[in-house]
Amino acid sequence: MTIAYDGTGFYGYQIQPSARSVQEELEKALSRLHKGTVVRVSGSGRTDAKVHARGQVIHFDTPLSIPEERWPKALNSILPEDIRVLAAEEVPDSFHARFNACGKEYRYLIDLSPVQDVFSRNYAYHYPYPLDLEKMEAAAVHLIGTHDFTAFCSAKTEIEDRIRTISSISFSREGHLLTMSIRGNGFLYNMVRIIMGTLLDAGTGSTLPEELPRMLHSRDRTRTGKTAPGHGLYLHRVFYDN
Amino acid sequence: MTIAYDGTGFYGYQIQPSARSVQEELEKALSRLHKGTVVRVSGSGRTDAKVHARGQVIHFDTPLSIPEERWPKALNSILPEDIRVLAAEEVPDSFHARFNACGKEYRYLIDLSPVQDVFSRNYAYHYPYPLDLEKMEAAAVHLIGTHDFTAFCSAKTEIEDRIRTISSISFSREGHLLTMSIRGNGFLYNMVRIIMGTLLDAGTGSTLPEELPRMLHSRDRTRTGKTAPGHGLYLHRVFYDN
Repeated sequence: MTIAYDGTGFYGYQIQPSARSVQEELEKALSRLHKGTVVRVSGSGRTDAKVHARGQVIHFDTPLSIPEERWPKALNSILPEDIRVLAAEEVPDSFHARFNACGKEYRYLIDLSPVQDVFSRNYAYHYPYPLDLEKMEAAAVHLIGTHDFTAFCSAKTEIEDRIRTISSISFSREGHLLTMSIRGNGFLYNMVRIIMGTLLDAGTGSTLPEELPRMLHSRDRTRTGKTAPGHGLYLHRVFYDN
Repeated sequence: MTIAYDGTGFYGYQIQPSARSVQEELEKALSRLHKGTVVRVSGSGRTDAKVHARGQVIHFDTPLSIPEERWPKALNSILPEDIRVLAAEEVPDSFHARFNACGKEYRYLIDLSPVQDVFSRNYAYHYPYPLDLEKMEAAAVHLIGTHDFTAFCSAKTEIEDRIRTISSISFSREGHLLTMSIRGNGFLYNMVRIIMGTLLDAGTGSTLPEELPRMLHSRDRTRTGKTAPGHGLYLHRVFYDN
């Protein structure tokens, strides 16, 4: 299933003991649909508190014989308003939303208005400072390709292999809204938000585009920019082979 | 002052005894800025529960000598996040936000997505039915001009004079978002929402564009469409002479 959620009311995608999560709401709704039987949901990956999704992908096993086109309506009638099932598809037993994902696209939204847009306050990072978009693009170029992104992930990252491939980073501006789109084969913990924070530094001039290669090579989180806030981030799409 | 607010958390613009209102939040913030002295605020008009504003205009009297360009920052640092002061201007004592207004523009947003867009659920009316935009425009033309809008305002309207002039109604569509913009010299209670509801009926074909003149002449609220929900409506701009 492809799902969208407004991250504002969630402590993240993943189930946790005493905080509202997307996974818990999905499993509650599925359990109702399965007359009380517990249904475990696997997502393509976690998203943090306040982070949104327009195209998160999840899978689960079900004995129900609901036709695939009826699933969205069936679940949406039970789910809270801040989660919507956009599409459902029957997949082979071998399919796994996380292990079969071969790439992801994230977007990061920035509200450049001098006064914060009230309607974007939970949906874009308010950053009312002059930005040189060309410098942000010049800095971003250095991140394209296959690199060790240790300097661009949370110091708390437990995974050992920090080599990832970024295939594209692009910016588009419409009015006061700046959007960064980033695609890659996988992203480490906080990686998109740290890239965004670092590229904002390039935009204000506090970091030079030429410093990016050195940041990468340093493998040192203290050399890169701030972690941009979660509420500007969207899991936009998950890619699968075939 | 020109202010914007997200209507989601308000029972409307106007102060009421036990419900959160925009006016109350403004007066609380101004009272803090005036060291406890009560400051009464006058708006260009009320907006209902859930209705938003991008360009509400308010005025008040103040003995403070804060330069006009500093007012937005001073108030925004006190106001809750869902109200923002966008601009401030010193006006003659004779100015009145309501009595001097010579026109208003409202916008109404409709989410046409088959599955409701989670990010628009409080900001657009979800209407996932096929709409014939040309028919909506053909119906709207009959409302342009000076008419008695009794059939297009709430039956509870107390004001006697229901003659208003609508100068334009236009539609624009971007992706799944349809926007109606409507300008006029003044609007009666629920008038924009009833116009929207009636034009949606024209869009689905349940009302014919040619029926609009008869609806106007009937002066009968039961002949017109449903009142479209408040959360799709925006007070976009208030016009003043010079």
